[in-house]
Amino acid sequence: MFKKFFSNRIQNTPPSFIRESLKVIQNPEIISFAGGLPNPISFPQEELKISMNRVADKYGDKLYQYSQTLGLKELREFVISRFNKIHGTAFSIDNIMITTGSQQALDLLGKVFINEGDNVLIEKPSYLGFLQAFCLYSANFCPVKLNNDGLDIEDLKRVVNRHKPKLAYLIPNFQNPTGIMYSEENRKEIFEVIKDEDLILVQDDPYGDLRFDGKSALAYIGVNQTDKNIYLGSFSKIVTPGMRIGYVIAHNDIIRMLETAKQASDLHSNIFCQYILADYLYNNDLEKHINKIRGLYKSQASKMVECMEKYFPDGIKYTVPSGGMFTWVTLKEGQSALELFDKAVEKKVAFIPGNPFYINEKSVNTLRLNYTNASEEKIEEGIKRLAQAILEL
Amino acid sequence: MFKKFFSNRIQNTPPSFIRESLKVIQNPEIISFAGGLPNPISFPQEELKISMNRVADKYGDKLYQYSQTLGLKELREFVISRFNKIHGTAFSIDNIMITTGSQQALDLLGKVFINEGDNVLIEKPSYLGFLQAFCLYSANFCPVKLNNDGLDIEDLKRVVNRHKPKLAYLIPNFQNPTGIMYSEENRKEIFEVIKDEDLILVQDDPYGDLRFDGKSALAYIGVNQTDKNIYLGSFSKIVTPGMRIGYVIAHNDIIRMLETAKQASDLHSNIFCQYILADYLYNNDLEKHINKIRGLYKSQASKMVECMEKYFPDGIKYTVPSGGMFTWVTLKEGQSALELFDKAVEKKVAFIPGNPFYINEKSVNTLRLNYTNASEEKIEEGIKRLAQAILEL
Repeated sequence: MFKKFFSNRIQNTPPSFIRESLKVIQNPEIISFAGGLPNPISFPQEELKISMNRVADKYGDKLYQYSQTLGLKELREFVISRFNKIHGTAFSIDNIMITTGSQQALDLLGKVFINEGDNVLIEKPSYLGFLQAFCLYSANFCPVKLNNDGLDIEDLKRVVNRHKPKLAYLIPNFQNPTGIMYSEENRKEIFEVIKDEDLILVQDDPYGDLRFDGKSALAYIGVNQTDKNIYLGSFSKIVTPGMRIGYVIAHNDIIRMLETAKQASDLHSNIFCQYILADYLYNNDLEKHINKIRGLYKSQASKMVECMEKYFPDGIKYTVPSGGMFTWVTLKEGQSALELFDKAVEKKVAFIPGNPFYINEKSVNTLRLNYTNASEEKIEEGIKRLAQAILEL
Repeated sequence: MFKKFFSNRIQNTPPSFIRESLKVIQNPEIISFAGGLPNPISFPQEELKISMNRVADKYGDKLYQYSQTLGLKELREFVISRFNKIHGTAFSIDNIMITTGSQQALDLLGKVFINEGDNVLIEKPSYLGFLQAFCLYSANFCPVKLNNDGLDIEDLKRVVNRHKPKLAYLIPNFQNPTGIMYSEENRKEIFEVIKDEDLILVQDDPYGDLRFDGKSALAYIGVNQTDKNIYLGSFSKIVTPGMRIGYVIAHNDIIRMLETAKQASDLHSNIFCQYILADYLYNNDLEKHINKIRGLYKSQASKMVECMEKYFPDGIKYTVPSGGMFTWVTLKEGQSALELFDKAVEKKVAFIPGNPFYINEKSVNTLRLNYTNASEEKIEEGIKRLAQAILEL
């Protein structure tokens, strides 16, 4: 009845398959590899409880009052200093804004950069939360093929030359949905292709800390070589997603525009939780905590790969993750991930079919599996069930 | 250097004068009537501390994990049941979504309803956070004159007939910035004018609970008489703004669209704080707490009115608030609120000049004073300083 009132943009934006399916998969008998839920081991609950009591006693009113749009100074200082240390950059506090999760950063980037029809370069497949966010700003997506070591350089050149995209959105570390890690060589090649273009490069990095070998991340594409880079980060995968705290790092002229967009979007992010998180970060060893998460995810990933090898029929391919939270399965030519989804849910196992990660693909034979939120027993049982469902295709 | 990259919409959106000026007014010598900061008395700190520890012990992981876009069920139930009780409505849990403060609801309404150039009816003057939010969706604002008892009905008829607005945004209770309360009669007249129009009516109500005489609110415009009404509410003024928890109540078809828009905007609001707030609400007497706030604000408002009467030169007009957080001052014809602002800051008192609350008005002789966040001594001293600044105009 409200159709005539709704905007064109919202009528063109699909509801998130993931968030819709999370509702369906509440049935506790279903083993779910669907959501991108971090393992509860990544929530330092005891330490956060100490921090919340400490900041409540220490700061009183300030926790509960309106606050600045850019975010809590102490938190921004911690983040920028850790970022500079890891990545060899020299950003200052003027280069960072706290966001209500990384998802908000995507929305703000859409607000600040996208006019209707602007060309935006994306990975194929890409993070569906990004597609959803930029769909609301009527961006025109230009997908570039993804190989096992990163972007397909020939395809990248073609897209850049043909479409002259204004902005590119990449997840170079343990990409969502594929789990792919861009190689050092690939990153350099990408920068060679884009460095002279009028192109804002957004690198979203929620998973970079979750590298199984514990080494620090590979250098960002074009890091320290351009002012047109924007880096997104988040505490969702290393402390807690429930508090919705992410950040964006960029040239201060860009931060200033993002700040205006954020004023209009939610005034500021939850300051109560920013105080708690900052206190936690200054009083605990974050790197040690991250190591614990890495260790768990590494064994969960190994278990899933081992089980896929053991139970999947011949001809089914999958990525072998070296970090992050996902593996990406490719069924045989012509098989349908959506059809598999229905059969799998009957057998009480769930995943995300590849479809929502693409633009306008009808027949999709790929799917995303998350391994971080199931025990090794559940992983084995779930992959067994999934293998049976595949056999019925 | 990034001008060519920035979207048209962001280049047309002014930074919030209020949020910018909050930065300037950090000087503790300045008595500020500028921000819309609630008094810290409205933060039930001890009770919230009890709640945070209780929910941490009771719910564990759930506080820290990703959660549903619509918001915490228990919180939605509390809000909808209180709303139904106060307003005689029969909404269900399908009619409510939690937002990251009311400001986010404004952003989501823009996403869901506004195509570029759509006509939007607003009060003159209107809440600048709304203007900023809808500016980002390139709405075309159609202002309607505000009298002491609400909208000017003749002007309303003219605007409705001439511009056929798709959406109207009103703050009928203790309006921001003017503090005006729409009369019962005015509300009925407004509904008569709009009831047969294709018009979504948004009623934003952050201040309705802050009625000094303690009586419950007047009926919303057209309540129970149309599905095209949308109600916005917030805990910012009665519990805490720092946690950024607001809500939107509407027909479930509208909620469904807002949910998709919210998925793309921040996935969900801080679930940690939703648990704390819900626990607080179920275990304390909210109405008693609100009464305490009302009592304080009533005496602060009286004090400010008394001082304006005593110190302001003849010919300066102001509204006498019966609730809410603001009074609205009208200088003499031709006097400039912006000029006064500079003189006032020199004398160490601050306010918000009327300018940002209007669309395209150049010479503005009105200004907003907030009385909730200053002691009676500061109110007297601040109004004295302001009176001196006015004399120098």
